Formats: sequence, C-alpha cells, structure tokens
Amino acid sequence: MDEMQKFAREVFESQPFSLFIGAELTAASNDSAELTLSIKDHHKQQHGFVHGGVISYLADNAMTFAGGLALGGNALTAEFKINYIRPGKGERLVARAHARSAGKRLAVCQCEIYAVDSGVEKLCALAQGSVVPAN
Amino acid sequence: MDEMQKFAREVFESQPFSLFIGAELTAASNDSAELTLSIKDHHKQQHGFVHGGVISYLADNAMTFAGGLALGGNALTAEFKINYIRPGKGERLVARAHARSAGKRLAVCQCEIYAVDSGVEKLCALAQGSVVPAN
Amino acid sequence: MDEMQKFAREVFESQPFSLFIGAELTAASNDSAELTLSIKDHHKQQHGFVHGGVISYLADNAMTFAGGLALGGNALTAEFKINYIRPGKGERLVARAHARSAGKRLAVCQCEIYAVDSGVEKLCALAQGSVVPAN
Amino acid sequence: MDEMQKFAREVFESQPFSLFIGAELTAASNDSAELTLSIKDHHKQQHGFVHGGVISYLADNAMTFAGGLALGGNALTAEFKINYIRPGKGERLVARAHARSAGKRLAVCQCEIYAVDSGVEKLCALAQGSVVPAN
Repeated sequence: MDEMQKFAREVFESQPFSLFIGAELTAASNDSAELTLSIKDHHKQQHGFVHGGVISYLADNAMTFAGGLALGGNALTAEFKINYIRPGKGERLVARAHARSAGKRLAVCQCEIYAVDSGVEKLCALAQGSVVPAN
Repeated sequence: MDEMQKFAREVFESQPFSLFIGAELTAASNDSAELTLSIKDHHKQQHGFVHGGVISYLADNAMTFAGGLALGGNALTAEFKINYIRPGKGERLVARAHARSAGKRLAVCQCEIYAVDSGVEKLCALAQGSVVPAN
Repeated sequence: MDEMQKFAREVFESQPFSLFIGAELTAASNDSAELTLSIKDHHKQQHGFVHGGVISYLADNAMTFAGGLALGGNALTAEFKINYIRPGKGERLVARAHARSAGKRLAVCQCEIYAVDSGVEKLCALAQGSVVPAN
Repeated sequence: MDEMQKFAREVFESQPFSLFIGAELTAASNDSAELTLSIKDHHKQQHGFVHGGVISYLADNAMTFAGGLALGGNALTAEFKINYIRPGKGERLVARAHARSAGKRLAVCQCEIYAVDSGVEKLCALAQGSVVPAN
C-alpha cells in the first residue's frame, strides 16, 4: 500500500461516525475507493431494508476518499446526488467510487453501491458529486 | 396530533437506524416534517464536525416524512441531492423538509438543515428530492 | 439599476444562446435573478409542452446570474439538479433564482421555474446548484 | 434498425426544440441513446464556450431516449443532475446515455457528454437522472 493509501486509511480510521456505523475502507487506488458495510439490524428502516441514510453515507464517504486520493490530500464532499435503485438487503453493502475528473480545486466523482445478498451482488444505488480539498 | 402525524411518529419509531443514530421527529404537518439530532462525538468526521453522512441521513429521512405526509401514507425517498454549506457543529442539527408538490405517484420535497451552535441557528445544508409511495 | 445589475445585463446580452432561445433577464438584485421566456412553438417537445431542456437552461442560467451577483463578478454554474413538476405550457416561463449562501469560492443557489398560463402562475420545476467565479 | 429505434427516431424528429437547437439522434439501442450537436456560434455563452443550457438539454434528452427505450415507450425525464467538467468547445458535442436500471415505473440513467475538438474527444459533463413513462 502506497503512502496515499496509507494516509486514506488513517483518515478513515479517525472518523468516529464511520466507526460507529461500522464501515470499512476495503480498497483504495490513486483515484478510487471502496467502502464495505456488514449489514446489521440497526442499519435498517421500518420495512427491514437498509435505511437510505446508510446508503447515502456510504456514497458520500466513498466519493470523499476517491476524490481526496485524486486531489492528493484531505478532502470534503461539497455536494452529491443519489438515486436509489433496489432495497438494500443481504450480507453487506459495497460502495465503489472513482474520480472521473480532477483539477486543483475539484474532483467530480461517481459511486456505485451494491448489495451482496446470498453472495450475489446487485446494484442498489448510483451517486454523483463534487469533492473539494479540505482547506 | 392528528392521525397522520401519529402514524408518522409510529413509522419513525420503527426505524432502527433512526434510533441508533439518535434522531427525533420533532414536528410534522400535512406536508412537512422536522427531525432533530443532538450532536454527539460519534456523529463526527476527522475534523471534529458532523459527518456529511449524518446530515444526508437527516435530509433523506426528513424528506421521506414530509413527502409521505403529503402523499398520505408510507413512502420512500427515491432520489435526492444535497449541497453542504457550513460545517455541522454545536448542540444540535435540525432538518426541516416540506413537500413543494404532491401528486398520486410523487412528491417533490426540499429540506433545509440547520446547525444550532450556542443557541444560534445557521444554514448547514440544502437538499431536494423525490418521494414515492412505498408500494 | 446599480453597477452590478448593469454588469449582469451586459453579460446576459453577450450570451448568443440566450438571445437565440429568446430569454430575457427581467430582474436582478444583489443575490437574485429572474429570467423570462415567451413560449414559442420551437421551444416544445413531442407532446406540445416546453422541452425540459429549455426549462433546465432557464434554471442553469438564472442560477449563474444569482450566484454571480452574490459572488460579485463573472460566474459559471458548476453543477445543478432539477426536478420537473408540471408541464411547461401557457404564455411564458419565469425562472427566479436566489443565492442561499455565498463565500469567496462558491454560491449555493436555488431556482423556482413557473409557467404562466392564462395569467395564472404555476410551479413547473425546482432546481438547486453551485455557482463558482469564472476564473 | 428495429421497431423501437425507429420509434425513437420518429419521436426525436417530432421535437421542435431538438430541431431548433440542431441536435441529431445518432445512435440508439434497447437501453441507450446518443445525441450529437454540431457546435454553432448561437450555442455559446459570453466566454465563447457552449452554454451550459445546451449541454444540459443534451443530457436531459439523451437520458429521456435511453430511458424510454429501456422502458419500451414514450417517456419523460422526471429529474436529473449534471456536473460540468470542461468547457464545451470544438466541432461537436456528443451525449451518450444509458439506462442503468429499468422497472415498470422508472429507469435510472447516466449520461456522459463529450466535446470533440480537433478530432479529440474529451469528457465535458456527467449527468444522472430518472426517466418515467409519459403516461
């Protein structure tokens, strides 16, 4: 793992909310990041599926890391949009984000969120947003 | 509190993730809803501010309730977009959503999320999205 | 009309596409702008309503001007989102945008687009986006 | 060209605004569509680049056709989001949309818009949105 990926992991592990919700940074490259969440009952809404807010957290944060890696430092998601496609259910959710473009001030990222149910991965949501350097 | 607001409260209290994250449904009308969250350390990211994923959860869920109340029943947020404006810090976050239009199949909602810091309310994020009947 | 509003008008009149499509800048303040378009047959889609692309142009451009006025200079819309609510029909469309926040690098804007049909104004679409200085 | 693609072409050619702006439907499959626009001076904004409203029209309409083809009939873009990445300049713009999921009531689509400048294609904007049956 190179320096930037090590830095990404350290940043991730210093996010109290990511630890609280139980997410893991499971992959990172120079312009992409993957978060994985083992689905627990406390992630759910009234119908027994993962709450949209959990999915939007994964999208937001995976894009922050993909964008930060592309921009080369600490970063923030400035805005994003998400379309929910299928209910989040099964063993785990996997959010894969990558930067589609990166300048000095901005990276535009996309994220695909999959639900892995009985070992089968299905597209659960799609997101797109802007990531900016943290300062 | 009328029947629909009572129904909204029951639905909210049956959302395990809303209880886990510590949000409360603090107001509801026939086309609006307000969620409040007391900020705790476990809601934060690496800079000590509330994680964007917490703010996006509040926006998503406040719009689900505003849209559901406007549509007259159980509802889901189908998609939304959020722009973060100021860091989330202080005592609590308040998300106020209202339905700007509602037909049979769809309500279009907007949400303003405020951070209350030393008693002063400041605009923290703006969101907009679509809510659909749950079935 | 103050200097900034005069500047806004000059910029608007130097946009070939705005002249081609037939839009007018009908109001401007230090953080808001209004565009008006008289509906013609060439603005329509296959069902006889104004094409969504015309409405999204109005939203994009009204927010550029509202954001630029708030930022104090030439500006660009970096990204936006639009929800269509009702068909665009009648005499004209009116897009009213305002900046909800403005820093040095970014203004977050919202826009309401109304269709005026037989003198009655109805909400046709809602948009939200980010405007940045042009250089 | 199969029946659905022929239908798509007939719908496209019955859109007065698409003819007015000068766009062409240059490809279509059972879940994708491509629009091409030869850049003319009247498509530009004050800096000499293609106006964002032209790019957002292409994104909106390419997604309408991709979604309509996936849904199997006449369709409307209900909402979308666009991030502008590079200035639109050169010979032409090409918008390629595809449906990432399609049910009975909704298709979620993504669109990439490229500018072709001196024969080189560069990513100009990214969009994502929902398409619904027209009635």
